[in-house]
Amino acid sequence: MQLIGYEQTSLDATFAALADPTRRAILARLASGEASVAELAEPFAMSQPAISKHLKVLERAGLISRGVDAQRRPRRLEARPLADATDWLEGYRQFWEGRFQHLDALLNEMKAKETKRGRMPHSRSPRRRGDQG
Amino acid sequence: MQLIGYEQTSLDATFAALADPTRRAILARLASGEASVAELAEPFAMSQPAISKHLKVLERAGLISRGVDAQRRPRRLEARPLADATDWLEGYRQFWEGRFQHLDALLNEMKAKETKRGRMPHSRSPRRRGDQG
Repeated sequence: MQLIGYEQTSLDATFAALADPTRRAILARLASGEASVAELAEPFAMSQPAISKHLKVLERAGLISRGVDAQRRPRRLEARPLADATDWLEGYRQFWEGRFQHLDALLNEMKAKETKRGRMPHSRSPRRRGDQG
Repeated sequence: MQLIGYEQTSLDATFAALADPTRRAILARLASGEASVAELAEPFAMSQPAISKHLKVLERAGLISRGVDAQRRPRRLEARPLADATDWLEGYRQFWEGRFQHLDALLNEMKAKETKRGRMPHSRSPRRRGDQG
């Protein structure tokens, strides 16, 4: 896998912008349509200047842009940085899917052994272990 | 789309950890197998303490862990945070795929109009415009 250097600068800004729950919530809101700063501030217990700071981070990362209406200056979600971040993470899908399959196989093997031996004295029952997972 | 509150804390740490090219390069290296700190430091023009700082950020985010060999303390890539970050971004796939399809449709419409009208004086040729895109 060779990912070094791929969209490096913009990935930095994109991932940094995504590392905040308020900013992720703003993006979630904008996924369903344009919204003004006042509309975006509404669901949060935050001042408009605080929201504006978050919007600036998102804008600098190219994740949002301003609509044409000069009065409302609605913000809207931009596709490219989200697509690029998804592309980067997709490079690891094979890795983590493989790891999960390996863990599943191990778990099944353990379960099979336990069934074969029967329940050991003082061992936790498979049912309780399953409930905790 | 309702994504607010989903894996919020660990997504913060994961995305913050991914917002650095050296850390992304370390993850790319570890995707092909465990490596010691010395091995990880090798391809970078960086001291081992500088690399260790990056490793701490990755470790705190759960993106890497330490192997069992007490001598080498090899680092290895962990699947869960990468899977969670991918899951979060997948929620936006429909949005950006839709946006790109819309742009494609607009572009085709423009091309069709241009072909119908023939080449206008002083207009750039479709071929040159295509080359730039």
